[in-house]
Amino acid sequence: MRPISFSIEKEHPGSLARAGVLHTEHGDIKTPAFVAVGTKATVKGISSAQFSELGVQTIIANTYHLYLSPGEQTVEKAGGVGKFMGFSGPTMTDSGGFQVFSLGEGFGKKLSKFLPENASQEEGVSVYNEELATSHGKLAIVDEDGVSFTSHINGSLHRFTPERSIEIQHALGADIIFAFDECTSPAADYEYQKEAMDRTHRWAVRSLAAHRQNFEKNKQQGIYGIVQGGRFADLRIESAKTLANMDFDGYGIGGSFSKADILGILDTVDRELPKDKPRHLLGIGEPEDIFIGVAAGIDTFDCVLPTRNGRSGGIYTNNGKLLVENAEYKEDFSPLDTECDCSVCKQFSRAYIHHLFRSKEMLGPTLASMHNIYFLTHLVERIRASILDDNFEKFRDEFLGKYKR
Amino acid sequence: MRPISFSIEKEHPGSLARAGVLHTEHGDIKTPAFVAVGTKATVKGISSAQFSELGVQTIIANTYHLYLSPGEQTVEKAGGVGKFMGFSGPTMTDSGGFQVFSLGEGFGKKLSKFLPENASQEEGVSVYNEELATSHGKLAIVDEDGVSFTSHINGSLHRFTPERSIEIQHALGADIIFAFDECTSPAADYEYQKEAMDRTHRWAVRSLAAHRQNFEKNKQQGIYGIVQGGRFADLRIESAKTLANMDFDGYGIGGSFSKADILGILDTVDRELPKDKPRHLLGIGEPEDIFIGVAAGIDTFDCVLPTRNGRSGGIYTNNGKLLVENAEYKEDFSPLDTECDCSVCKQFSRAYIHHLFRSKEMLGPTLASMHNIYFLTHLVERIRASILDDNFEKFRDEFLGKYKR
Repeated sequence: MRPISFSIEKEHPGSLARAGVLHTEHGDIKTPAFVAVGTKATVKGISSAQFSELGVQTIIANTYHLYLSPGEQTVEKAGGVGKFMGFSGPTMTDSGGFQVFSLGEGFGKKLSKFLPENASQEEGVSVYNEELATSHGKLAIVDEDGVSFTSHINGSLHRFTPERSIEIQHALGADIIFAFDECTSPAADYEYQKEAMDRTHRWAVRSLAAHRQNFEKNKQQGIYGIVQGGRFADLRIESAKTLANMDFDGYGIGGSFSKADILGILDTVDRELPKDKPRHLLGIGEPEDIFIGVAAGIDTFDCVLPTRNGRSGGIYTNNGKLLVENAEYKEDFSPLDTECDCSVCKQFSRAYIHHLFRSKEMLGPTLASMHNIYFLTHLVERIRASILDDNFEKFRDEFLGKYKR
Repeated sequence: MRPISFSIEKEHPGSLARAGVLHTEHGDIKTPAFVAVGTKATVKGISSAQFSELGVQTIIANTYHLYLSPGEQTVEKAGGVGKFMGFSGPTMTDSGGFQVFSLGEGFGKKLSKFLPENASQEEGVSVYNEELATSHGKLAIVDEDGVSFTSHINGSLHRFTPERSIEIQHALGADIIFAFDECTSPAADYEYQKEAMDRTHRWAVRSLAAHRQNFEKNKQQGIYGIVQGGRFADLRIESAKTLANMDFDGYGIGGSFSKADILGILDTVDRELPKDKPRHLLGIGEPEDIFIGVAAGIDTFDCVLPTRNGRSGGIYTNNGKLLVENAEYKEDFSPLDTECDCSVCKQFSRAYIHHLFRSKEMLGPTLASMHNIYFLTHLVERIRASILDDNFEKFRDEFLGKYKR
């Protein structure tokens, strides 16, 4: 028996959209589902006590961040990332690949593909080598075996390999973990994208092997492979085909650093993946993208924008986004979104939340993030209902007709 | 009939302590009670949706801050400070006296007692006069009629008089408002303290008159006079006697800028006040102070420390305070306070909250503040129960025996 399983309740006749249930040791996730981002084992500003009222079924935490602080061993002692953050529902961790390359600041620079000699033996060990860190600068250095990178916190040198990422994810103990992948810059040329994709495939084999080995922890953990290939359709298709032949429990579609990389060819990619396995679109989840993703067969989405926008007063509504700090809301005593049933919209006005932001009160970002998370989870709930009720297109057209980008 | 009324349920035989109920238009406050500080119409980091679970019966907002932003007229349009912040229970506003003198930065400096000529006509009008603001510097300038002060936000010049403070408090619409008083530096000499106290008494007469005039708003609003006199027992007693003869609905005891000013002579002062009216100790509310205050006949307390300490990880427990960011809590999976029943202690560990603080996650200050507010409101609830059960001293000795400062 697989550690996680997926059952499809209904398929939409006109697209790849489907409604299903993802079963995990810590409970079911009704799909399509919006996964709240809990990078450092916290959905920023929101307590796990509020997840249920906000419609949060599951969260995705970050291997890179939790490895650096508090360290995966602390989380393991707490009983895993869910228990650590006081959440009894299903959890995911990504592999850390994206953060290694983005926060390690390889992004936009030519990545060195050769590991400095004196770092080559330090796989998985957190060391600070001043000479190396200095020469190494801010780059993430990729070699066949893995990636050396500097901490965004203190510049110390670290190394992830597929095996090390999986080992950390076993300690973090989420229900769904991800293979370690290389995230390329959208500026990378075809040649480099292909090289990185091929390496990601070799790392996928190693991640899967490391996971299926006799780790005590991994019995309940499902593992997803990650489709890469940047903005090149043929590479994406090749990547999907290659990973489809590996025995993953599900698949992540890596957005790389640009969502334009993948959205246009997502349905083509998903057609190559096994239909009976769940698919997660990594890091993409604006309302308009979610409709595209669902129609292309995506089951789960994660995206930092509801909380990131929320922290600066950017509010999602059924009529599009608004900036609540703008002067026009100073005496607007209507809720953030008049069509929203969330606890924030029931209790507080735009004028109050405007005041909180203007006064730099921390409750402002919290309330805005709560509303935004509810908005996204509830939007995806409504999409799910529309698939079950056979009116997905109608709901999509109605929603997007009103929603101004 | 008075806008607010107070009934005593039980008097403690060995001290001035009493348990009672303060009746307001927006509900009852069971006393003794801890009043959460909601300076800018928000208890920092905590939503009013959480007040009930945290034991918050009432909050005290700040006239100075709400006058500056968003302006009392916006709050009035919202339906008053309670409605503005989504809270249906009783509310209080202080008069702004303390903030005018502390944030206007008169504190610790020799206050000028003469108003610059060109500001004298601008009572109650928010103006920016660059020349005056510059010459005026950062001082709060007191004259017989009121105080001119600069905004801590942008240096603009403002003026409060007793009448203006009451007018603003009418717009803010709290159930309990305070007379406008002069808060002196603890360094002020006897002569100045007496002068300021006498002025505070004249301002009390004017505040009361302004309140009792035919304002539509004030029918449900009770007004408290404020006892001043700094650290001088004879002045405090004189102040209490003077105010006792005025027809206030209750009394505030001004802590000035130092709690040593008042705690030692609090019972002497309270003996001069009418027994059947409620008494509020302004800005003092550490656990050990609360026991002193209750024994001296105080009914309500407010104090910023539960939230201010909470924001920097200072945690109240039944065994004293701890700093949850300290290394010793990194893998301490017990709750913040093992004897606490609050929702934070039921769901989260010290290790998790330690991690949130180390990671500078905003949820850390929120959870710590929630716990601290619950701790204080619950402590005062327990004190109330001990008065009703005739074991106030026993409870006090047990609590303080364990509670390390």
